[in-house]
Amino acid sequence: MSTNQFLPLVEKIKTEGKCLEGGILKVDSFINHQIDPIMLQLMCEEFARRFSNVHVDKIMTIEASGIAPAVVLGYLLKKPVVFAKKKKPSTMANMLTTEVYSFTKQKSYTVCCSKEFIKEGEDILFIDDFLANGNAAKGMIELVEKAGAKIVGMGFLVEKAFQNGGQMLEKLGHRVESLAVIESLDNCTITFKE
Amino acid sequence: MSTNQFLPLVEKIKTEGKCLEGGILKVDSFINHQIDPIMLQLMCEEFARRFSNVHVDKIMTIEASGIAPAVVLGYLLKKPVVFAKKKKPSTMANMLTTEVYSFTKQKSYTVCCSKEFIKEGEDILFIDDFLANGNAAKGMIELVEKAGAKIVGMGFLVEKAFQNGGQMLEKLGHRVESLAVIESLDNCTITFKE
Repeated sequence: MSTNQFLPLVEKIKTEGKCLEGGILKVDSFINHQIDPIMLQLMCEEFARRFSNVHVDKIMTIEASGIAPAVVLGYLLKKPVVFAKKKKPSTMANMLTTEVYSFTKQKSYTVCCSKEFIKEGEDILFIDDFLANGNAAKGMIELVEKAGAKIVGMGFLVEKAFQNGGQMLEKLGHRVESLAVIESLDNCTITFKE
Repeated sequence: MSTNQFLPLVEKIKTEGKCLEGGILKVDSFINHQIDPIMLQLMCEEFARRFSNVHVDKIMTIEASGIAPAVVLGYLLKKPVVFAKKKKPSTMANMLTTEVYSFTKQKSYTVCCSKEFIKEGEDILFIDDFLANGNAAKGMIELVEKAGAKIVGMGFLVEKAFQNGGQMLEKLGHRVESLAVIESLDNCTITFKE
């Protein structure tokens, strides 16, 4: 869990982020409903910089909000991007699947990916918008390991450190890079980790 | 309905596209499951070229497969991208909504967008991966018109001309630019429009 805060994103969250009751951080004006092209570019360049010492064959994410940062990073690094799907599409056979429990939605969902697009021995960089308890990320690790591929890094735009997903992923031996790390959303106040 | 085929995409579909029973074209090795970064860049540069004479305030798409081309086009044009959501998120009030019937899935779904991110008077370029019967595109036109904004162009990576969505959208007065236009998928053979 890096506390290496990416200041342009921290400033943007301070200016445009909204904190709602129940530990919810809304960043839908620039990350997960409307996307700010300048901020997206800055964030992806920062991911490229932080993971520049890692060999990457492919970038993976989960639909839908992870697609934007994954794709622009893929564009910058000229690497293929694979997005795992949240339901098994009717036109797909030969799938890797795993179950993920979402605390936000209080139900499990299936994450799946065609075996064609994660191959044995590939080095996978996982990118997503949020890291909270890390269940989705853990599901992706399982998918990638089922395929015999390897996670070489995990990048998140925003980490809610109080939900301990970063700690859990690091205990599993993964390198986690979060561009903005939030210590608390108590009392509807956004507090960044020092 | 432009029959101005974008040849790099046509070649890619010929090489990697798979035609399944029932008029299904699978392009998931480079468009909607795995994304080829070089092809994505070429396609988005082509959209930028085709819509270079149009004033654009914002790019809109629908999650999830439209996000990749919309975001890279937003990156190239330095314009915000808004992606409409297929379910109303619990953390969103003040939404514009519309119903879309999917022939593929044989059910209706709700498409929604926060009123904050489409404003009266804005010029909207709509981008999506597929144009078939055009129901999703028509739903987006309704959303944008409800907001008092204006669709200035509609760009699709692949159009299935035999499902007549392009014709329908042009009859409604919209400019449609499809990078690859498919005339028929009969007998599991991909035939491009001349």
